[in-house]
Amino acid sequence: MLELIELKKELTITNPSTGATIETLSETSFYEASQLINEAEKAQIGWAKTPIKERAQVFYKYLELLKNSKEELAKLVHLENGKTLSESIAEIEKSIELTEYACSLPQIAKGDLLEVSKGVTCTTSYEPIGVVANIAPFNFPHMVPHWTAPNALMLGNAVILKPSEHVPLSAIKMKEMLLKAGLPKGLFQTVLGGKSMVELLCENPTIKAVSFVGSTPIAKIVYAKASASHKRCIALGGAKNHLIVMPDAHPEMTANNVIASMSGCAGQRCMAASVMLAVGNCDNIINLMITEATKVIPNKTLGAVISKFAKEKIENHITLAEKQGAKILVDGRGITVTGKENGYYVGPTIIDHVTSEMTIAKEEIFGPVISIIRTESIEEALQIENDSEFGNAAAIFTQSGRTANETIKSFSAGMVGVNVGVPVPREPFSFAGWNDSKFGHGDITGDASILFWSNLKKTTTKWNPESKTNWMS
Amino acid sequence: MLELIELKKELTITNPSTGATIETLSETSFYEASQLINEAEKAQIGWAKTPIKERAQVFYKYLELLKNSKEELAKLVHLENGKTLSESIAEIEKSIELTEYACSLPQIAKGDLLEVSKGVTCTTSYEPIGVVANIAPFNFPHMVPHWTAPNALMLGNAVILKPSEHVPLSAIKMKEMLLKAGLPKGLFQTVLGGKSMVELLCENPTIKAVSFVGSTPIAKIVYAKASASHKRCIALGGAKNHLIVMPDAHPEMTANNVIASMSGCAGQRCMAASVMLAVGNCDNIINLMITEATKVIPNKTLGAVISKFAKEKIENHITLAEKQGAKILVDGRGITVTGKENGYYVGPTIIDHVTSEMTIAKEEIFGPVISIIRTESIEEALQIENDSEFGNAAAIFTQSGRTANETIKSFSAGMVGVNVGVPVPREPFSFAGWNDSKFGHGDITGDASILFWSNLKKTTTKWNPESKTNWMS
Amino acid sequence: MLELIELKKELTITNPSTGATIETLSETSFYEASQLINEAEKAQIGWAKTPIKERAQVFYKYLELLKNSKEELAKLVHLENGKTLSESIAEIEKSIELTEYACSLPQIAKGDLLEVSKGVTCTTSYEPIGVVANIAPFNFPHMVPHWTAPNALMLGNAVILKPSEHVPLSAIKMKEMLLKAGLPKGLFQTVLGGKSMVELLCENPTIKAVSFVGSTPIAKIVYAKASASHKRCIALGGAKNHLIVMPDAHPEMTANNVIASMSGCAGQRCMAASVMLAVGNCDNIINLMITEATKVIPNKTLGAVISKFAKEKIENHITLAEKQGAKILVDGRGITVTGKENGYYVGPTIIDHVTSEMTIAKEEIFGPVISIIRTESIEEALQIENDSEFGNAAAIFTQSGRTANETIKSFSAGMVGVNVGVPVPREPFSFAGWNDSKFGHGDITGDASILFWSNLKKTTTKWNPESKTNWMS
Amino acid sequence: MLELIELKKELTITNPSTGATIETLSETSFYEASQLINEAEKAQIGWAKTPIKERAQVFYKYLELLKNSKEELAKLVHLENGKTLSESIAEIEKSIELTEYACSLPQIAKGDLLEVSKGVTCTTSYEPIGVVANIAPFNFPHMVPHWTAPNALMLGNAVILKPSEHVPLSAIKMKEMLLKAGLPKGLFQTVLGGKSMVELLCENPTIKAVSFVGSTPIAKIVYAKASASHKRCIALGGAKNHLIVMPDAHPEMTANNVIASMSGCAGQRCMAASVMLAVGNCDNIINLMITEATKVIPNKTLGAVISKFAKEKIENHITLAEKQGAKILVDGRGITVTGKENGYYVGPTIIDHVTSEMTIAKEEIFGPVISIIRTESIEEALQIENDSEFGNAAAIFTQSGRTANETIKSFSAGMVGVNVGVPVPREPFSFAGWNDSKFGHGDITGDASILFWSNLKKTTTKWNPESKTNWMS
Repeated sequence: MLELIELKKELTITNPSTGATIETLSETSFYEASQLINEAEKAQIGWAKTPIKERAQVFYKYLELLKNSKEELAKLVHLENGKTLSESIAEIEKSIELTEYACSLPQIAKGDLLEVSKGVTCTTSYEPIGVVANIAPFNFPHMVPHWTAPNALMLGNAVILKPSEHVPLSAIKMKEMLLKAGLPKGLFQTVLGGKSMVELLCENPTIKAVSFVGSTPIAKIVYAKASASHKRCIALGGAKNHLIVMPDAHPEMTANNVIASMSGCAGQRCMAASVMLAVGNCDNIINLMITEATKVIPNKTLGAVISKFAKEKIENHITLAEKQGAKILVDGRGITVTGKENGYYVGPTIIDHVTSEMTIAKEEIFGPVISIIRTESIEEALQIENDSEFGNAAAIFTQSGRTANETIKSFSAGMVGVNVGVPVPREPFSFAGWNDSKFGHGDITGDASILFWSNLKKTTTKWNPESKTNWMS
Repeated sequence: MLELIELKKELTITNPSTGATIETLSETSFYEASQLINEAEKAQIGWAKTPIKERAQVFYKYLELLKNSKEELAKLVHLENGKTLSESIAEIEKSIELTEYACSLPQIAKGDLLEVSKGVTCTTSYEPIGVVANIAPFNFPHMVPHWTAPNALMLGNAVILKPSEHVPLSAIKMKEMLLKAGLPKGLFQTVLGGKSMVELLCENPTIKAVSFVGSTPIAKIVYAKASASHKRCIALGGAKNHLIVMPDAHPEMTANNVIASMSGCAGQRCMAASVMLAVGNCDNIINLMITEATKVIPNKTLGAVISKFAKEKIENHITLAEKQGAKILVDGRGITVTGKENGYYVGPTIIDHVTSEMTIAKEEIFGPVISIIRTESIEEALQIENDSEFGNAAAIFTQSGRTANETIKSFSAGMVGVNVGVPVPREPFSFAGWNDSKFGHGDITGDASILFWSNLKKTTTKWNPESKTNWMS
Repeated sequence: MLELIELKKELTITNPSTGATIETLSETSFYEASQLINEAEKAQIGWAKTPIKERAQVFYKYLELLKNSKEELAKLVHLENGKTLSESIAEIEKSIELTEYACSLPQIAKGDLLEVSKGVTCTTSYEPIGVVANIAPFNFPHMVPHWTAPNALMLGNAVILKPSEHVPLSAIKMKEMLLKAGLPKGLFQTVLGGKSMVELLCENPTIKAVSFVGSTPIAKIVYAKASASHKRCIALGGAKNHLIVMPDAHPEMTANNVIASMSGCAGQRCMAASVMLAVGNCDNIINLMITEATKVIPNKTLGAVISKFAKEKIENHITLAEKQGAKILVDGRGITVTGKENGYYVGPTIIDHVTSEMTIAKEEIFGPVISIIRTESIEEALQIENDSEFGNAAAIFTQSGRTANETIKSFSAGMVGVNVGVPVPREPFSFAGWNDSKFGHGDITGDASILFWSNLKKTTTKWNPESKTNWMS
Repeated sequence: MLELIELKKELTITNPSTGATIETLSETSFYEASQLINEAEKAQIGWAKTPIKERAQVFYKYLELLKNSKEELAKLVHLENGKTLSESIAEIEKSIELTEYACSLPQIAKGDLLEVSKGVTCTTSYEPIGVVANIAPFNFPHMVPHWTAPNALMLGNAVILKPSEHVPLSAIKMKEMLLKAGLPKGLFQTVLGGKSMVELLCENPTIKAVSFVGSTPIAKIVYAKASASHKRCIALGGAKNHLIVMPDAHPEMTANNVIASMSGCAGQRCMAASVMLAVGNCDNIINLMITEATKVIPNKTLGAVISKFAKEKIENHITLAEKQGAKILVDGRGITVTGKENGYYVGPTIIDHVTSEMTIAKEEIFGPVISIIRTESIEEALQIENDSEFGNAAAIFTQSGRTANETIKSFSAGMVGVNVGVPVPREPFSFAGWNDSKFGHGDITGDASILFWSNLKKTTTKWNPESKTNWMS
């Protein structure tokens, strides 16, 4: 009766748009978590033996359910995360695209075959690992679990998903819908909890792989802990994405892209523009950005940030930048939305004349804030980008083929864009940054994630001796 | 002048066939190692910008040199490692095959391209990581460095190779030949040392990736240490390979394969047969094995083990097995070779009636010793294989298509064989085990290693706006 | 007003199970066909520019429609083709699987990218061809069009489908459902007609590629004609599939497979078993086959053949075999089904002691008839298979790994089976035979068909000069 | 003794640089050709069974021989073809690159494997076709045979090579060196002859595939004839390559590229620039081209054309253009080289104000002649390119990323370039044009040629029944 006496912590789920409580849930106890992991381990045995084409049938059904529930799922994301409804719909559409990729895995995750020497054939096959853990952040409650779980499941594993404590509702709904689509019971589990639950997942010996998406300091810890427990791990951390804007950039498109990139999802995405490196005279583009920023309206085209704490932290960053000498062109501090006075809104913020030494130029802000650093040359701009410890995304805005080509080669980042403010690779391309934005190798989605979710079995076969004499025997 | 006062340890290289000293070398000091790493870092900048097809020209030239120096290189392996000359030649031939694979990388490590939405194109490219470390064991002085370094170099990285303290000469020769083939200076470095040098490589922040091949306990430590330093790591550990022999197996071929597998390279290979699981009545096969063992003659068809310590450890294992109740069918203890009385020879050893609880059935022996466990059914045999903490290799000997197929699916091992005692995948297939035989994901050679030695850059490009009106402007 | 005076031939669609007329349709006139081709050409321009991921959305929707209409579509196949309802359902399920593959093409038909020399990048992309023609046979009214049209459309082409005159209804329904799924109007056209319509499709200069599935004599003509008009062509012809049965084959499974293979779809499939090569003493298996044949009951588990003519031709072949000295073990001639006296039924037929010189051993019968040739050795059996001018499918029944392996290597056929009577490759594997069973290269489905439905564009890009000095200009 | 009485035609090999006879050879008689084909057929049986990794060893050796004989081979090409020595060296270097690709085929031409349903596994393998014919043109005596023969041989086939009657010496040398490298006797044959030999190769039933490179009218005939004999065929024809030059193009680089493209190999390459589409005001670029043309000096940087007939035909084309109203900016007619007065030299020729109706704008010239068509817009320029019946190569010169991207998408050509005058895809990318520049599908080199030189064997394997009960039996 251990579970009865264990003290279960409560999780309060808050609507960031209003500050109101949505629901109160219990954290998963360690005992419960262990039981769920054991259930998953048992369920995985049969699933591993289910041919991948049969597994795909579950996900084709799930795809249909996702498409039919798009609005409902988006509302839930909006509710628990605070992003706008249209941003929430875009998030579900990305989950759909990720699921389409997972459905395609039977065509992709084939082994190889070759007669390597006379009478000797080598083959390979992608085999499941067992039970894997996916640890997800708050900013994409539905999409990030879909980065990992559909592929991991399709490749024959069981998945333990730990959503962020802020946004567990989409994850719980995901489980419900996977079951409805026919996923065998036990294969996909959600556990609710915080730091100690992360530790449990890193240490539990049944779990063979850990994927993590969150901040860089935690990513480093998770990566080291999971590895110390002999697991494979891919851990995605934070970002500080640089956009280089050249004087020959298309003004309207550039202004529009920069503002959309920095303010979309209230800046709470690892792909958000954070620093604009303006090369030479980009004043007309910056003026257009100021105009664009006026169209970003809290509670209409701009959602709330995740918490009171996040709002305060972002606003403090702006204030610090001001103190350190930067010039606030558009100021998003102190916003209140009528009727939603307790919502966690920060307005779009443009900060000019930032220098690379200022705090705002170096730390991840995770709010709708763009810092402009003026540079004299593209080499200077690239140096700033290269010097960042992160390496998630970067982009160049120009009309010159050569400038674009040279710059993307010089960026030290995993996902780069040419005239694209949010260079998220669409499926079938894979997702992950470089440097301190990702620990481990390969990517977290797409073809570059298949080896992470699999064990490759290499088979060598010989049927000797070569004489045919006893074929009739 | 720090380097002048640093105390440099000496490395004595011994000929295992005679016990005589070949050469005395200095360990690389920490100061020297850091300088070599810095040199490598600098050399890598230009190499990373060298197109892969140009890099390949170095390796085509190196391939020619390897082919022309086969005998010479084999003699060096024989000298420092103790394996026979023909085994040494086979080792160099494998290095050649690995280099051929590396030469093919321009055809393989291509990026992808797709127009993912109207006017938006995604592409990928495999980019170098920087400086990587390869830590190699004593048993394949030439081949194991060729598992990793040619691919790592071809993919644009610099390599720091730490060979085993027992066998650094082949590594030093490799460096000499790579330079002769035109590899830019500084790109490939060897460092000599032991445990503390491994720690340096795991911790030095310039090094971005660590590959390790050795025993499981050290593999675990290296994997955890390198990961704690935020590096990617693949660490191959030990093995305990099981061969299931069915009563319908081809007797001569099976006996020949089992003996060759257990005694080749004096049993000092992670692919060596260690436990034979004899299902039902396999007495005729075991009798043939005894005959085969008589053809395995120290200093002729059987080489020395690496050290006096190794010889004693193996012999102690045999003695312990005897004490625990096993029956020694062929005894390799106490062998001396006339004229090479100080050589570290252990004769081929067959131990019957071993049980799965005995020490000899569980620990890695790394000597020419095969333990026979008698089982009543294939399910019992598979259970023993599955229960092993290792998962490097396993094989089934049978003439039945169904038995072969079911068994290879049930093995919990990365490299499995059907009627093949040493199921090393030939190129282009990749090498690595499962479970405690490998930490990290992907494999250490072949296609499944490309993502380990690379960073994938994902680029999204848009050239807007869509109207063509200003094409002439 | 040309179309008004053109004499339009009538097509009478007959229900083979009853001999009753289902419907009377007009053939497509040449004028109409030309107009439809022109419409397709126009529609293709926009479709070619639609990114493949958007095209896929049509096929995901179509996939849903197919799954929801499985029963209805199967009834239509049963009605116009005569195969049983459960065979018809299996046919629709294969169409679904083919459509799933087509939906996966965005993940598969990616181009490549590599920097081939300093500053020079090569890329490739799969581009549409234009308008293509698919000519389909009567035996799989729904599946064969799904071999080609979904892939061809997904890859950006327009498709003109000419179904068999016997079974146009499924094709017409397919068009209706594709439109419902959102396929742009004009892209997918059906034309009704016979030989002269085939000629038109081979010669019309707007059509760039022709796929054909039918008999070998017509396949040869179509291949030559389309090629003489400078088109690419893949033409699948007939078959004469050999099953080698070894004395060690599993008796029940083998008997079951052979009878299922020869009698499924009333033997009217190019993958049907036609000749059983019994090596050594297979009497017990043949006896089991006779028992199995009793379970194949016309109008229950056995459908009708396509026409009165087909029924007569098959029965004449049996009679001729008898005259030439073969022994009829089970006789399917002269069958009538109560209540369906005018249906075109032929019962399952087993003919023993056939020799390779008999007509029945050489010609394609396309009915539920298996000929048994007794051979002394597997070499003799293989010789008979190799001597056949066809090369569609072949299979070996044995429990020996070596026999299986050696035999499949020796078969001269594109699709081979081990203990599988109908070795149709499942998706993602591709479909096509060898020798006179296929003209042209590549396959008609799967990855091996992508180059047929595409033009590969190879792009080389350089942005020079290399100096960066004028980046700011 | 049929061969004794057959009248053997003589082939006179002429040095185009001097007009002198190099050598006189006999054509291969039909009887001899048939014997060579039969020999090839026999040799292919063993070669087909040789694993691809062993075949590769022959080509690694051949690669060494090629590299060591570069100068010697280049001299032979120079001698029989007339191109300059440095152009000849570049040709051999391309042969080397093609051979490197062929050596890589074991890593590339692997089959696939997947368990497609419970207990059922599908696999594929690339199998040889048999004897294939390669018909080569005069303009690249060494390279074009290396497009096809190394890949065809590596994939297990025998090759009958028919070189151009003008340049058989390089082909004969190729055979000699392949034998020296260890290629089994009989596998690679050369036949000398003209039109009737081409017919023989198209019709001989032992030959299963025909590749052809030459002019479009002959390509059409070969394609139709080979197909009428039920063979697979890929036939590359002529070209009329368009270069669009934008006013924003880099002037020096563009001028240099255009002149190099049109005059390299004396314009006798299917990738040569033929029509320059000057959009807007490109006068400065045209002036630079005139200067560049002065550096193209017959017998120094410009080789001879293949024959007196070729020289006259080219000069007549220039004269006709003049008559039709074009303006000759640089005139290459009537050139003589001192000391080589009988050499077939045509000087570099620039013709301005050509219109798309003029003969020179439509027909393939195959000489060092560039026609300039002035256009007002890029749309007009693209229309001219799109209207050409050919579709081999096309290029755009611009500094704008958008212009480049839109234009390469709009070109109707297989090989397109951005700021690259001769956009030959480097290995591993494949070679072939579109439209009337190529008949058949796939390409003639690289990955896109593998299916042409192979038959894909699809194997489905099942080892049933599933119960494990009789594993011990």
